[in-house]
Amino acid sequence: MTPFRSIEWTGKALRLLDQRSLPHQTLYTELTTYQAVAAAIQDMVVRGAPAIGVTAAFGLVLAARQAETASVADLRAELQSAAKHLRQARPTAVNLAWALNRMLQQADAAITPSADKLRQVIEAAAQQLYAEDIKINRQIGAQAQSLIPDGAKIIHHCNTGALATVDYGTALGAIRMAHEQGKQVHAFLDETRPRLQGASLSAYELQAYGVPHTVIVDSASGYLMRSRSIDLCIVGCDRVAANGDVANKIGTYNLAIAAKAHQVPFYVACPLSAVDLTLASGDQIEIEERSPQEITHIGDRAIVPAGTAVFNPAFDITPAAYVSALITEKGVLLPPFEPKLRRLLDE
Amino acid sequence: MTPFRSIEWTGKALRLLDQRSLPHQTLYTELTTYQAVAAAIQDMVVRGAPAIGVTAAFGLVLAARQAETASVADLRAELQSAAKHLRQARPTAVNLAWALNRMLQQADAAITPSADKLRQVIEAAAQQLYAEDIKINRQIGAQAQSLIPDGAKIIHHCNTGALATVDYGTALGAIRMAHEQGKQVHAFLDETRPRLQGASLSAYELQAYGVPHTVIVDSASGYLMRSRSIDLCIVGCDRVAANGDVANKIGTYNLAIAAKAHQVPFYVACPLSAVDLTLASGDQIEIEERSPQEITHIGDRAIVPAGTAVFNPAFDITPAAYVSALITEKGVLLPPFEPKLRRLLDE
Repeated sequence: MTPFRSIEWTGKALRLLDQRSLPHQTLYTELTTYQAVAAAIQDMVVRGAPAIGVTAAFGLVLAARQAETASVADLRAELQSAAKHLRQARPTAVNLAWALNRMLQQADAAITPSADKLRQVIEAAAQQLYAEDIKINRQIGAQAQSLIPDGAKIIHHCNTGALATVDYGTALGAIRMAHEQGKQVHAFLDETRPRLQGASLSAYELQAYGVPHTVIVDSASGYLMRSRSIDLCIVGCDRVAANGDVANKIGTYNLAIAAKAHQVPFYVACPLSAVDLTLASGDQIEIEERSPQEITHIGDRAIVPAGTAVFNPAFDITPAAYVSALITEKGVLLPPFEPKLRRLLDE
Repeated sequence: MTPFRSIEWTGKALRLLDQRSLPHQTLYTELTTYQAVAAAIQDMVVRGAPAIGVTAAFGLVLAARQAETASVADLRAELQSAAKHLRQARPTAVNLAWALNRMLQQADAAITPSADKLRQVIEAAAQQLYAEDIKINRQIGAQAQSLIPDGAKIIHHCNTGALATVDYGTALGAIRMAHEQGKQVHAFLDETRPRLQGASLSAYELQAYGVPHTVIVDSASGYLMRSRSIDLCIVGCDRVAANGDVANKIGTYNLAIAAKAHQVPFYVACPLSAVDLTLASGDQIEIEERSPQEITHIGDRAIVPAGTAVFNPAFDITPAAYVSALITEKGVLLPPFEPKLRRLLDE
């Protein structure tokens, strides 16, 4: 059992665990408007590609309630407008757009006698996404087990656990499942500057599950691979292009380069909802740049001289050539990825 | 002119700029015992391989004064004992041991009628090291210019400037000299976790000199090389083995791996005092592990859950195969390094 819940629908409001106050405080916030949901995604109250997809879906449920109309056509228009607003909250992760599009398709396809009926359809669609996410994560964890030997030393980047999803997680879920199956795994957690999701969130989760782990600075991964035997790296993804290029948290690419230099397998846990076949390669993925303050300050403490320029891309692109396998809910894919991704997504 | 001075001998005391309070406060501390000097090195009041070498040399000057003996033999014994204490302050940088050995050799070689005369010899030897360091750094800067084109975009790791030396610096000095010569260079500064010497100290220096610069998180270097044209990387070193393997601040190796993957030249500014011909390769270099607190806390703020294990190596080893050139005060060395290092050090 995960002793916390990143996202919960109360029937009236969306309850989010405010991840900005972790690991020290476990605070929840309840949101009742889609605008507040968009702000929470933007401000990283909730983060992680799968989690923000489901969060945005419940944003549409709230939008449907906010629209006090009896007209089905008006309600559909309101949903379109709210989806547009929510989609802009974070540009890189495709799950956000994917979840919103799936919700809108279901709203459009529904044969509904009334606006209230449509509201019910929308809520059921969000609930379905919520339940599916947990199921998919467990499937990814199960698929990953053939790649995780007993005794494995594993480097993990950012947070991809229950906090980044509805529950269980993707890459971190795979490590958790290995531990639950009795494998003696040890996770080395990249702290993941600038926002330190590895040091704060992933360490918080693995401590809760009893999985042995050690936090390192991001730049120590090469030294670790060279001085100790590391068996594999595993990360999540925010978007995967048709050719298998992976957009993920900044620093993923440096880790992948170090892994390749040491012949350490580099695995990407990849729910199929993160695959964007409309993009031929990762070069077409928009990379979100976030506030300089994420680098210049830690808490209230400035760590650079006043006036210093910073460059703060939230994500990077890891070319498919650096990816040993994509671990999807429908199986482990080895390169070349494109034909296999197309086949799975056509099913 | 450098508007600050990392190390200054007042004639009675050693005055250090307390680098732990930078970039926000410029505080100086005066030390009058070698024990206090060793503690300042250990606690990183002063840091940077060349700077700690000269600091330790003045530690011996203080030790000579502390020893209230008229016996030359007793004074020499006291110097040996103080040197042993100082040498243990930080194990990885060889400049520390190198400077102390040179001081002790001069003390042993001096034909001295009295302990007071020996004290003068020791002080003069430290003053000579001090002056030489500045001269060597400017020579390294000058040697580096053939490798730095006009308009160069440069990634730099840690701090290797006037703060890491007596003055001017090594790798950062090379960038500064390029700017002073009118080249339109731009420095991307790795923030350098865990102690953030890049974000705090290197940014502070380049701001003071008017050199254009941008701070990045350490793990963004690969993305930067892939998305913008980076012309070269340049770093300092704490110890270089006979084969050219380089011990330097943790993260140097990850940067070198990323540079090689992008065919970006990777240069190491290397005063010959950092070369340790007694070690065949970098595998023999002792890597200092520092306090977990450097990773778990930033200021007073804990960034990991209580009880989290961390691994905090202060340095890593970059194999010579990743080094495009060693920039010494006597010239730029291309691989293979060993015969050239032996020749220069035999001169």
